[in-house]
Amino acid sequence: MSKIYDLIIIGGGPAGIAAGIYAARQKLETLLITKDFGGQMARKAVAIENYPGFEKISGLELIQKLEKHLKKRKIEIIMDSVSKIEKIGENFSVLTGSKKQFQAKTIIIASGADPRPLEVPGEKEFIGKGVSYCVACDGPLFVGKEVAVVGGGNAGFEAASALSSYVKKIYILESGPEVKADEENQERAKKSDKIEVITDVALKKIEGKDFVESLLYQDKKSQKPSTRAKFDAGPVPHRNKVSGAGINTLKVSGIFVEIGSQPATAFVKGLVEFNEKDEIVVNPKTGETSTPGIFVAGDADDVPYKQIVIACGEGAKAALSVANYLQTLK
Amino acid sequence: MSKIYDLIIIGGGPAGIAAGIYAARQKLETLLITKDFGGQMARKAVAIENYPGFEKISGLELIQKLEKHLKKRKIEIIMDSVSKIEKIGENFSVLTGSKKQFQAKTIIIASGADPRPLEVPGEKEFIGKGVSYCVACDGPLFVGKEVAVVGGGNAGFEAASALSSYVKKIYILESGPEVKADEENQERAKKSDKIEVITDVALKKIEGKDFVESLLYQDKKSQKPSTRAKFDAGPVPHRNKVSGAGINTLKVSGIFVEIGSQPATAFVKGLVEFNEKDEIVVNPKTGETSTPGIFVAGDADDVPYKQIVIACGEGAKAALSVANYLQTLK
Repeated sequence: MSKIYDLIIIGGGPAGIAAGIYAARQKLETLLITKDFGGQMARKAVAIENYPGFEKISGLELIQKLEKHLKKRKIEIIMDSVSKIEKIGENFSVLTGSKKQFQAKTIIIASGADPRPLEVPGEKEFIGKGVSYCVACDGPLFVGKEVAVVGGGNAGFEAASALSSYVKKIYILESGPEVKADEENQERAKKSDKIEVITDVALKKIEGKDFVESLLYQDKKSQKPSTRAKFDAGPVPHRNKVSGAGINTLKVSGIFVEIGSQPATAFVKGLVEFNEKDEIVVNPKTGETSTPGIFVAGDADDVPYKQIVIACGEGAKAALSVANYLQTLK
Repeated sequence: MSKIYDLIIIGGGPAGIAAGIYAARQKLETLLITKDFGGQMARKAVAIENYPGFEKISGLELIQKLEKHLKKRKIEIIMDSVSKIEKIGENFSVLTGSKKQFQAKTIIIASGADPRPLEVPGEKEFIGKGVSYCVACDGPLFVGKEVAVVGGGNAGFEAASALSSYVKKIYILESGPEVKADEENQERAKKSDKIEVITDVALKKIEGKDFVESLLYQDKKSQKPSTRAKFDAGPVPHRNKVSGAGINTLKVSGIFVEIGSQPATAFVKGLVEFNEKDEIVVNPKTGETSTPGIFVAGDADDVPYKQIVIACGEGAKAALSVANYLQTLK
């Protein structure tokens, strides 16, 4: 049988990277498996201003710094996804997306969260063809175009703000009767003549030929063509075509999805305790899960605040707990 | 009565600074009270290699970066100590060392920990005259001298390693039968011909005229002049003078104290729940203490791991919890 690592870390976002830095310092034989580096940071459309030590830094730059820091340490890294973890005897077996298998005495799950999909017809077909979950990655492809951002929280408003330097027009679509973004973000949107907010939106369908051409939605409250946010008192825009039964059509070539995230924890279901949101229940002092030997850090766990520096702190904690746990096995 | 702040943060170490950065982002009217910036980081003798994003940075440099980041945000800062917190009606009153009084709806205690003193005769008298709790600050004053470092953990070994670039000779004194520093630190010490480890040490007295001249100790185990660590098999050094009843005298002009720290929490005793180590009992998911409206972050709380990035994460959490708590008051 192959080598047995002290620790396998799953995930290359802030939590996984911090765990890796600490594990190397503890001289643990560590393997880190990740699809990519940075996790959700890579999708940050606006600069990060709250990671202590960097007044203002782009997500990409911070990722590069963290990745470089990790790679200076003694740690093995494999670029792959993880499809399953099983307990085999005293150890854990990790099966990757490319069907490789690795074993370790302990696991740190730092797999974070993925963007929550819209789950409307057309979404999957048009991924990469107009449907995007990453303004930072795909925004520049839409220079001069009209686009929609789905989600009226901070992420949606920040996405719209970032897009406004490329595109001609941005609709922010919110399913509730009011947007949830903070004052600062709302004010910035009000100042832009490119951004228009539409509330009470029930998405129906994404249509197009080779590429997204339109987004169909219904006005939840009134079944009327559309309800526009209070602070935007202008006339209903002409390019909303009404196609019967209160269905509105927005002619857009890009749709950016910003309706939150869901924990990327499916590969460990049944092995550790989950909460109702599919987050892994954690002892937040130590990073322990309900299963001895499996630890968790970052957005995959049930700590309510999802922040880069919080994820880093949890990654450090989990690695120190792994070192203590391995001592008890001796 | 004076202004009532949304939040008073007590402490300017990593936890307090992170809390301040996050509180400003939440647009809370915030006052931060601290004696100095950086907390225990200022005493770090060796470079920091585990704050994610900085591969290797001195404590001083990282403090400067954090302090600068904080000061870019909208936050009031007062350089002062805190002597007492009281609950007055719905609010909290904070009395400072210079007898100023401030009120706030919420408090984040980020006061960290202070170095634990030796508690032997002569210690207090010679503070600043040879007794030091900060190698980074005072090490360079001892060029060419012989010094002792009290404490055989990582902090003691790192202090000795840092001192070895200035001083002629360093004794690491450990009260137990074996040192507790990790392998890496022990190996580095072995390689230095300036560092000598003495175990089973019971400190008795610090002596000198205007400045420290000698350190008196007893060998706990054997009552013989001295027991030297296993890995240092050379002869007992000639400069250990035995002065009757198994008391040894080390001729040193500097004594660096590295025997851990104690939470700086006395000013809030009776107001929030403490554990047996005088750490404040925390809900580690939120930073809440046993008293609504008072939150805690960093080394003042009972999270077992004391690390810069963990303290930052906790500071962020506490500030976000304060914002939520203030919402419930409305």
